[in-house]
Amino acid sequence: MDNRWIARAIQLAEESARSGGGPFGAVIVRDGKLIAEGVNEVTIANDASAHAEITAIRAAGRALSTFDLSGTEIYASCEPCPMCLGAIYWARIGAVHYAADRHDAANAGFADEFIYREFAAGPALRKIPLNHVLDPDARRPFTLWRLKEDKTPY
Amino acid sequence: MDNRWIARAIQLAEESARSGGGPFGAVIVRDGKLIAEGVNEVTIANDASAHAEITAIRAAGRALSTFDLSGTEIYASCEPCPMCLGAIYWARIGAVHYAADRHDAANAGFADEFIYREFAAGPALRKIPLNHVLDPDARRPFTLWRLKEDKTPY
Repeated sequence: MDNRWIARAIQLAEESARSGGGPFGAVIVRDGKLIAEGVNEVTIANDASAHAEITAIRAAGRALSTFDLSGTEIYASCEPCPMCLGAIYWARIGAVHYAADRHDAANAGFADEFIYREFAAGPALRKIPLNHVLDPDARRPFTLWRLKEDKTPY
Repeated sequence: MDNRWIARAIQLAEESARSGGGPFGAVIVRDGKLIAEGVNEVTIANDASAHAEITAIRAAGRALSTFDLSGTEIYASCEPCPMCLGAIYWARIGAVHYAADRHDAANAGFADEFIYREFAAGPALRKIPLNHVLDPDARRPFTLWRLKEDKTPY
């Protein structure tokens, strides 16, 4: 852990809020060196997924020409929401350091804490219904995938 | 629920696997009309976040010029992972319909089920450490945000 990167993530969050984005910033680092930065671009890019951690993960993927960010760490101005924590797992980032938490985000009007509660509640009690459609073709894409020889697994 | 859209999501997943992407597809619909489609572009775009649901959410945001997809429903070839379910909440999509599930995805070599277990495990038991850094400036971006008058809240 290096406090410089937390300070940078907080600075990015402030710059973002000042310039019309959301008040969140994130930095991805490897071996003490900056790989990529990101800020919350949800309202600017009309992209509900454009949280700071995700924009940083995308930028890091472009910078390193790989989706696999093993060996990196992420510093975020605020605790990652479930979407961003999921993305951190998929990107194989090694550790997460964050400053503000989900309660601070809730106090500022953001839904992070609500969404964490929804995850904990289990499918049947959630606000958004999840409907498992029993389709005989459901597994066909996976069968095709398993049989494919020149695929890039991840 | 309209089985046509589930069939389309499965078809997209198969086309994606055949053309070098991941075996996942998703479709966003409103009032019976197609808004956007997406496939898994993780390995093609070097973007760990580019699951089918997220690429569809991004495309829908571009198509409708808003991050707020209220009133839409999403059809996915496979149960959304925690990242995608989080994105669905942030996008305010009204309902989720999916064909294959996390166990089918696990059988095809994907980590969805593992990540769901990690979420359920709670921070202390997780594979990726989450470190809450106590920084006196942690809440500064939110203070700035609360005081800002011309912001776009979400």
